[in-house]
Amino acid sequence: MKVQVLQDIMSANDRIAEKNQDLLNKNNVLAVNVMSSPGAGKTSLILETIERLKSEVKMAVIEADISSTIDADKIIKAGVPAIQINTGGECHTDANMLGTGLERLSLTDIDLLFLENVGNLVCPAEFRIGTQKSVMLLSLPEGDDKPYKYPLMFSTVDAVIVSKMDYLPLSDFNLEQFEKAVKGINPDVQIFRVSVKTGEGIEDWTGWLDTQLKGLR
Amino acid sequence: MKVQVLQDIMSANDRIAEKNQDLLNKNNVLAVNVMSSPGAGKTSLILETIERLKSEVKMAVIEADISSTIDADKIIKAGVPAIQINTGGECHTDANMLGTGLERLSLTDIDLLFLENVGNLVCPAEFRIGTQKSVMLLSLPEGDDKPYKYPLMFSTVDAVIVSKMDYLPLSDFNLEQFEKAVKGINPDVQIFRVSVKTGEGIEDWTGWLDTQLKGLR
Repeated sequence: MKVQVLQDIMSANDRIAEKNQDLLNKNNVLAVNVMSSPGAGKTSLILETIERLKSEVKMAVIEADISSTIDADKIIKAGVPAIQINTGGECHTDANMLGTGLERLSLTDIDLLFLENVGNLVCPAEFRIGTQKSVMLLSLPEGDDKPYKYPLMFSTVDAVIVSKMDYLPLSDFNLEQFEKAVKGINPDVQIFRVSVKTGEGIEDWTGWLDTQLKGLR
Repeated sequence: MKVQVLQDIMSANDRIAEKNQDLLNKNNVLAVNVMSSPGAGKTSLILETIERLKSEVKMAVIEADISSTIDADKIIKAGVPAIQINTGGECHTDANMLGTGLERLSLTDIDLLFLENVGNLVCPAEFRIGTQKSVMLLSLPEGDDKPYKYPLMFSTVDAVIVSKMDYLPLSDFNLEQFEKAVKGINPDVQIFRVSVKTGEGIEDWTGWLDTQLKGLR
């Protein structure tokens, strides 16, 4: 009986996720679900991406957080529309939250929409929300054993971004071993080595976004 | 109706948490719930603590993880009893999981028990499990804005350990501002600045543990 109820909730979420994706496709908006642990640099990467692409690509951001509007404030300061969703304690964004965010945006004026999820490597991976692509950041200081500990997250994303590469001189992170582990779980995944601070790898990342945008049209 | 069911679940958890704490107190075991984001260095700090205290204090560790036994294997290698709990996808440890772990340990042979929780700043803070003390690590690379984003976690712990202090030369983390924010949420909290790599602050941390151990007797 309990399982039945859970299944119903999941499929209600999935139905809304499908509606979200239809709405995005109809408006030619590429939406990217950005996930990571707390403090892996999601907001910094989005801000840098805005800086690099803003002359060619119309962007917007939906910020999901337990509380606070710190991140949305930064995005708006960068000149891009941002919607803040406070999840009210929930550890993830569900399809309904994304749907509410989409209603508040002018989708015909957007090419690329980032959904910055709650900082968490567990719960966000369990919910389809309707974005066409999903990516995760793993910051170098978090360590190279994370694919073994959070396999679901690594297996469901289209790209893994190793962030804070500038910490490499102080770190014992084994990049080759990490990438091998990730490919073992998710053979088709794209992996980027990125530092917002030094600029390393940012062009590879924005190039990948460009390819995804072209794929949508 | 739905709220009613949720309340029942919560108080069932709390009842088991109380039973766990009674059992720990009866056996003079100090249990510390160790929480953080993924990769903030919980296992490394526990291993270093074992190294420093093992001649005087009898320790054991319960490792909670979504999957894998990587951390428990490391603890056993350090010569300390370790129990692995796989939460099977759950983003936190609940009182029942701790209870199951306690049943498998010889409590009369333990002074200090660490429960290493799932890497997550959201869900673990929502569950009383029965440990007498709870602490969190915030690694320097995660950034100094986390108290605003995850206030529940910061407000419920007895100590905040700023880990990976060795990354400070490459970081713009504002320690004073961070500690002020933490104290604003949780005035009585202890804050430690620690690096397992350099040894910074480890004695303050083990000194605090010693005081808690004496408080129990």
